[in-house]
Amino acid sequence: MRAKSFADMKCSIAGAVEAVGDRWGFLILRDMMFGLSRYDAFQKSSGIPAQTLATRLRALEEAGLIRRQPYQDNPPRDEYLLTDRGRDMWMIVTAMREWGDRWQAHGADGAPVDLVDRDTGRPLRMALVDAQTGREVDVRRATMVAGPGADDKVAFRLGRSGHRAG
Amino acid sequence: MRAKSFADMKCSIAGAVEAVGDRWGFLILRDMMFGLSRYDAFQKSSGIPAQTLATRLRALEEAGLIRRQPYQDNPPRDEYLLTDRGRDMWMIVTAMREWGDRWQAHGADGAPVDLVDRDTGRPLRMALVDAQTGREVDVRRATMVAGPGADDKVAFRLGRSGHRAG
Repeated sequence: MRAKSFADMKCSIAGAVEAVGDRWGFLILRDMMFGLSRYDAFQKSSGIPAQTLATRLRALEEAGLIRRQPYQDNPPRDEYLLTDRGRDMWMIVTAMREWGDRWQAHGADGAPVDLVDRDTGRPLRMALVDAQTGREVDVRRATMVAGPGADDKVAFRLGRSGHRAG
Repeated sequence: MRAKSFADMKCSIAGAVEAVGDRWGFLILRDMMFGLSRYDAFQKSSGIPAQTLATRLRALEEAGLIRRQPYQDNPPRDEYLLTDRGRDMWMIVTAMREWGDRWQAHGADGAPVDLVDRDTGRPLRMALVDAQTGREVDVRRATMVAGPGADDKVAFRLGRSGHRAG
């Protein structure tokens, strides 16, 4: 399923693409960054077919981006959580969101989601900065809120606990 | 080829993923950000199969990320250039590179490529900043240079003219 060549490319970009695996992988990571963790929540959020979801979750687990954890014994059920490696993809997903907002790739009347400082409410965004002197905002201060283009899917994702940005 | 559902999701992240199309799309964008523009250069850089390359270039053109431009009359040959919309994906590709560097997803002994200020040589990186007060570095000041893990493919990509970061 995953081409060996991507991992062999000695390229960090190819390595990131390889780890996510395919288009659905990005949406599953997105949903997990919103705090979704369960099978039915992923399906409700993205409409991903059940078999594809099972395959992608397994691949993301193999790539070390997510881990499984039982949340119920009878019947046994697992939920899925981001590993540190997976949570660290927030910058990629955030860069995608910002691009989609700038180019109206969301098909909505405005940005579906805004990223703000959880204490001050001030808008946050990704930028290129000097590695030493850039005034970075700790991602743990960031929180996602409904934007002007939010629909019921966005409300569903935001309705979960723990929608830290990263 | 491209699932309608991704564009219909009212989600900026899904919209960005939809525009790039698949894994190869990210590598073609990467190569174009290095300044590659021709069919044989894309093949040499990534080893992408010819038919896949043709299909992906057409899809990226339809998504408005790249445009075609003739560079030779006899026989007629086109090269491919990023549109503004496509070039604006540099932040996504850069976030992927940084993730791959941090998690050694490149499979090399060190980062294959570093991003530095073209005048001062100081390292640059992506960060979350306050939208108003963040000290952003203009992407036009950024240039890519070979890192400690660079191999001959990186040298090939960097050897082209115009490897602006964005």
